[in-house]
Amino acid sequence: MSNEISIKERVAEMKLASPYMAASTNEARNQALSNIAKFMMIDQGKITEANELDLKNAAENGISQAVMKRLKFDYSKRTAVQAGLEQLKELPDPIGKTTLSRELDKGLVLNRVTVPIGVIGVIFEARPDALVQIASLCIKSGNCAVLKGGKETLNTNRVLFEIIHRAAVEAGLPENCLMLAEAHSEIDELLKCDREVDLLIPRGSNAFVRYIMDNTKIPVMGHADGLCHIYVDKACDENLALSVIADAKTQYTAACNAVETLLVHRDIAADFLPKLKDCAEKSGFALKGTAEVGGMIGCEVIDESEFKEYLDLILSVKLVGSVDEAIDHINRHGSHHTDSIITTDDETAERFMQLVDSAGVYRNCSTRFADGFRYGFGAEVGISTSKIHARGPVGLEGLVTYKYKLYGEGQIVGDYASGKKSFHFKDI
Amino acid sequence: MSNEISIKERVAEMKLASPYMAASTNEARNQALSNIAKFMMIDQGKITEANELDLKNAAENGISQAVMKRLKFDYSKRTAVQAGLEQLKELPDPIGKTTLSRELDKGLVLNRVTVPIGVIGVIFEARPDALVQIASLCIKSGNCAVLKGGKETLNTNRVLFEIIHRAAVEAGLPENCLMLAEAHSEIDELLKCDREVDLLIPRGSNAFVRYIMDNTKIPVMGHADGLCHIYVDKACDENLALSVIADAKTQYTAACNAVETLLVHRDIAADFLPKLKDCAEKSGFALKGTAEVGGMIGCEVIDESEFKEYLDLILSVKLVGSVDEAIDHINRHGSHHTDSIITTDDETAERFMQLVDSAGVYRNCSTRFADGFRYGFGAEVGISTSKIHARGPVGLEGLVTYKYKLYGEGQIVGDYASGKKSFHFKDI
Repeated sequence: MSNEISIKERVAEMKLASPYMAASTNEARNQALSNIAKFMMIDQGKITEANELDLKNAAENGISQAVMKRLKFDYSKRTAVQAGLEQLKELPDPIGKTTLSRELDKGLVLNRVTVPIGVIGVIFEARPDALVQIASLCIKSGNCAVLKGGKETLNTNRVLFEIIHRAAVEAGLPENCLMLAEAHSEIDELLKCDREVDLLIPRGSNAFVRYIMDNTKIPVMGHADGLCHIYVDKACDENLALSVIADAKTQYTAACNAVETLLVHRDIAADFLPKLKDCAEKSGFALKGTAEVGGMIGCEVIDESEFKEYLDLILSVKLVGSVDEAIDHINRHGSHHTDSIITTDDETAERFMQLVDSAGVYRNCSTRFADGFRYGFGAEVGISTSKIHARGPVGLEGLVTYKYKLYGEGQIVGDYASGKKSFHFKDI
Repeated sequence: MSNEISIKERVAEMKLASPYMAASTNEARNQALSNIAKFMMIDQGKITEANELDLKNAAENGISQAVMKRLKFDYSKRTAVQAGLEQLKELPDPIGKTTLSRELDKGLVLNRVTVPIGVIGVIFEARPDALVQIASLCIKSGNCAVLKGGKETLNTNRVLFEIIHRAAVEAGLPENCLMLAEAHSEIDELLKCDREVDLLIPRGSNAFVRYIMDNTKIPVMGHADGLCHIYVDKACDENLALSVIADAKTQYTAACNAVETLLVHRDIAADFLPKLKDCAEKSGFALKGTAEVGGMIGCEVIDESEFKEYLDLILSVKLVGSVDEAIDHINRHGSHHTDSIITTDDETAERFMQLVDSAGVYRNCSTRFADGFRYGFGAEVGISTSKIHARGPVGLEGLVTYKYKLYGEGQIVGDYASGKKSFHFKDI
């Protein structure tokens, strides 16, 4: 990887290689996935050595325990990555599918066919397993990928990249289908390549994703915020509500789909809030509430404007007078990620699910279900809070677009404009 | 329309109204379309008066004839707009369609349902017919729309907007579903509303669209450039080639899908180029070629780096040694819009259509077919050269996204993480 050639030049070369990557067979792409798994087995020692060096450097640099944990590429992560590769191989080829076939007129046939997006830029913080996972998704979907990992995983990433690249090339995929960017300055260079890179996927902290979104003209798939809500309606099974709240708050606190704000119907507050307080104590999370809530259960009182995404064992609580007030709060202050209603009333549930403008609207279950694997997508690129292209948990189909192929016999538009000929539009 | 409230505040209100617009019935939205057609008939006189005032002002300000032509909202344009409204009413409702229904586990059902995108910003130059057309598409698809027209059509737009807004509100759609922005400064304000506006659709000159794309973080649907190619292979029907070239160049010169660059296989150049010269003379367009082409037919010689989108009766010509050289030229210099190959060789055609990375790849027909109406979409939002969300001619489906609805009975993720329960993923 010579640093004499700029990122922009290297990505421009990749852009020209991308149609050849798109033309690769499913067999070759699956072979590349098998090769990755195989080479990872063979080079286990090398991977461990590199990862230990990264961990040693990180420890010397006083990196936090949370990052150290993400950094560590141990046996269980390696096994999970290899299982993921096997599953991915089994998934149907996402490209080359004809999604529309229409005879516009005699001898003039239009086909719409799925194709890879082209060049994907993946930028992630210290997660060696994410590097393998996302590179594999790009390969399976026929995309070229620029991979930019965190500096903390420099050595692990180099070994893993070398394995993935060799796996791809030995399977007959283009030399330029994958590229590793290492220097931090290269992120900003990459963000400027809006003619060469078709889509960016950032994986990391909210601040990191927000930085990417704010500093590029390239479309970004992902989410900066995950401020999810649960609304407990006046007509509800309170035990069910408490069980769902505890799961959504504590099952994996750092996840974007963990609940951060609880809205409770005022009519049941006097009965429900003390039970909530018990549940919070037993489950190990703290409650912060508006003055009204604090007055009832004596929790820490905060202003509604202080409600936020904690990613911690804390839950904000507010009372509302109706489902419409809950909907309004969520649409105003939420992040359009995932929001759940707990109710036994079908009409109220439908109103909530219709009017809450989020990627996921749930009834009587935990917000933590917002996940590609739990939706049965087999593999996940990430969760998108954008409304354009892909929304919610995104599987392989988020890495695919389409092109129109029109087959003619010399047809010209002049003949249709003059009325000499006319379209008959027959789907075939 | 008070100017005391900022665009941002007004658009924020619209954002909150958008879920209610999304919940409107197909009947109400169709009623709004009928109302527009009816009110346009009733207020014909007002429309004509306003349009004549705009035309008079434009003439006094020395506006070009081309703009005057777009500005004029005459009987034939009004009739076309009204016919379009009728067609649009007949199209199936694009929202509320279930595109995935899956039982994740017993009593836990996931549905993916199409929904409007939300708030669309439409920015167009002087085209009163475009205002009606795009507002109607937004209404049909349940989207709220901020409409920003050109200052040259200020008076016509006011009358038309009043009609469209009244039509929508009388059909029971939310008051805030449509909004007119008038001041030029409001464009820049609108471009900053990336939390409120979900998608921008600019309609106007290339420079105008480029300006919008370069100055906003909101996703933009459209195309700044339309640099389309025709490649004439060595194995081809030369008469068919000439007929297609003449149509693609002259049938509507100012269109984005008109051909701008012709690539000819070197093996047939000596025979084909003189015929091309004759054809150009007869059809009234000029040829500019590389030195090699100029040496053979004596046309104006330009450097390949001067090839561009003329939107005029001029065609650039270059010779290539193979289909791969043609593909490489198109992928490097084209705008990924629409490119056509003229060949009798199936293998060469497939190679071109596979490897040319454009929204439309054609065989043996004119690039001018790249159009929503000609693809049978009934209505067109525009043509997208983006690879994200929508590509090529975009119909109503480009104004639609989806949300996931998950129906449970108290399910929590903890039970699946611990192995107490497991997913069975049954599509229903």
